[in-house]
Amino acid sequence: MTNSDFDVVGIGNAIVDVLAQTKDAFLEDNSLSKGTMTIINAETAESLYAKMGPAIEVSGGSAANTIASLSSLGGKGAFIGKVRDDQLGDVFTRDIHAIGVHFNTHSEGVETPTARSFIFVTPDAERTMQTFLGACVELGPEDIDPELISKSSVTYLEGYLWDPPKAKEAFLKAAQTAYGAGRKVSLSLSDPFCVSRHRDEFLDLITNHVNILFANEEEIKSLYQVESFDEALKQVRGHCDVAALTRGVNGSAIVAGNDVHLVDAEKVDRVVDTTGAGDAYAAGFLYGFTKGNDLHACARLGSIAAAEIISHYGARPETDLAELAANTLGQ
Amino acid sequence: MTNSDFDVVGIGNAIVDVLAQTKDAFLEDNSLSKGTMTIINAETAESLYAKMGPAIEVSGGSAANTIASLSSLGGKGAFIGKVRDDQLGDVFTRDIHAIGVHFNTHSEGVETPTARSFIFVTPDAERTMQTFLGACVELGPEDIDPELISKSSVTYLEGYLWDPPKAKEAFLKAAQTAYGAGRKVSLSLSDPFCVSRHRDEFLDLITNHVNILFANEEEIKSLYQVESFDEALKQVRGHCDVAALTRGVNGSAIVAGNDVHLVDAEKVDRVVDTTGAGDAYAAGFLYGFTKGNDLHACARLGSIAAAEIISHYGARPETDLAELAANTLGQ
Repeated sequence: MTNSDFDVVGIGNAIVDVLAQTKDAFLEDNSLSKGTMTIINAETAESLYAKMGPAIEVSGGSAANTIASLSSLGGKGAFIGKVRDDQLGDVFTRDIHAIGVHFNTHSEGVETPTARSFIFVTPDAERTMQTFLGACVELGPEDIDPELISKSSVTYLEGYLWDPPKAKEAFLKAAQTAYGAGRKVSLSLSDPFCVSRHRDEFLDLITNHVNILFANEEEIKSLYQVESFDEALKQVRGHCDVAALTRGVNGSAIVAGNDVHLVDAEKVDRVVDTTGAGDAYAAGFLYGFTKGNDLHACARLGSIAAAEIISHYGARPETDLAELAANTLGQ
Repeated sequence: MTNSDFDVVGIGNAIVDVLAQTKDAFLEDNSLSKGTMTIINAETAESLYAKMGPAIEVSGGSAANTIASLSSLGGKGAFIGKVRDDQLGDVFTRDIHAIGVHFNTHSEGVETPTARSFIFVTPDAERTMQTFLGACVELGPEDIDPELISKSSVTYLEGYLWDPPKAKEAFLKAAQTAYGAGRKVSLSLSDPFCVSRHRDEFLDLITNHVNILFANEEEIKSLYQVESFDEALKQVRGHCDVAALTRGVNGSAIVAGNDVHLVDAEKVDRVVDTTGAGDAYAAGFLYGFTKGNDLHACARLGSIAAAEIISHYGARPETDLAELAANTLGQ
């Protein structure tokens, strides 16, 4: 493997989050399934936006959040994703540049508005997402720069990318390019419903293309259609080099060959909003991985990053994660 | 005075805040004067936006914040201000509707983008604002609906409105209409530099048109060009029915005829961001005033609302202020 210009290049939906505090009754009244992500069309987006409470707008997108946190940890990150040249596209582009991420996916000729995800945060800090994919549906294989992929130690893909039709081709082109260049490919399963939408393709992908898999308990159980975490853990063995399985307050389990590492979650004074917890965990883990840390240390870094993200609203770090990690690990 | 449909109608710049955490060095490097608001042009806005760190977007605008907090307290609020029909205009419009405020200033034909204010929050919780007025410069007397003004118990004007040239005419038309209908006129001085830009006009306005004046210590000292708060307090007596003068952690002083009431600030566990503290104070005060409370109770309500606003990022309430006020006053 030759030297890399980037530690991780992420490919994902480029989204601006519209974040509102919500009571549980709002979810019930609007038949929203708590804790999940649903794709909505422009019409539903408009009607939902009119009904929801006051909100804040903040850059999001699963893989984009991961790359932002990786950058805050001191890693070199790049991102590929599609926005339109509109005000929300400006917000997304500027925020990701502001945190030091390389991002230059072209937006010329994109006609659909920049994607947004309405995120309802209930008092239990759980988030329920309704995503209008907008410009993301225009991401295709032509947006994958083989040179960028070849120059990155890890190519990281979010499972949500399987939803917009053309993005799948982009996804496969990137994975093949990364393999050809002797790089690693990493996938996050994103959401249990996303897994059930694309189960067979994900299983094929994990077996044939993925080195490092990220999933939470619900997602990995959905993937193998099993009832228990322990059963899912058995199934994932041998399907990819490393599987990092997160379990919220119960920490994470890392499966690599015959080894299983169990790592505790970091303590958090008050969990405010769990949006982006998994994205941040992946960032910490991949940062550690690309810097040659052992798997236990990678998981610790994941837990530290996730703990910062869930202690405030929004899925991007509000603290310098490099400083936070140094302080926490130095204790 | 006949019955009113609205407790307060606010007239102000319709702005989306772009809020970023910043180290003090950033202010120095960019020659920004801490704690103040500066008007910038489109070019400076673009260059500053490119340089600043990751941000969140949240609806703002001084008078608009006041009306939002008033609405959260249970008051009936209306707002007049100018946005363009663009994505940030949608954000502003939706957020103010979502909190129950009447807002229908027309945006047809507006060519300049919706205004934004870059707000740099330093670790001491102080905010420094750089505002691109955008569509706000198109607000004029034609946007003042005399019927709306006549139906509102109080017409509330932000001093910042003096910056866009045509808004001044709107401001005077509104004040005259309110007087004609036997209603009250209230003005917030907004910012010490805003006061020094428009001192003579403000003095004339306060003497001839304003019933209820809001100012913080720096603003009232700037207005009368005096060194001490005590001296400013003497000068303001008799210039308007009521002057509510805020002093941060030192609480507020209410001057009405020969009476002076001193009211303590509410305790806050951790001050995060002082953006909108004055706006929220005015909201609580005016809510109390329109409900017939005595001046001490009005100031208490102002302090309670301000304490909520400064305990988080952003200038609009994150808590139901009516509930908070009931709980605090019931203790």
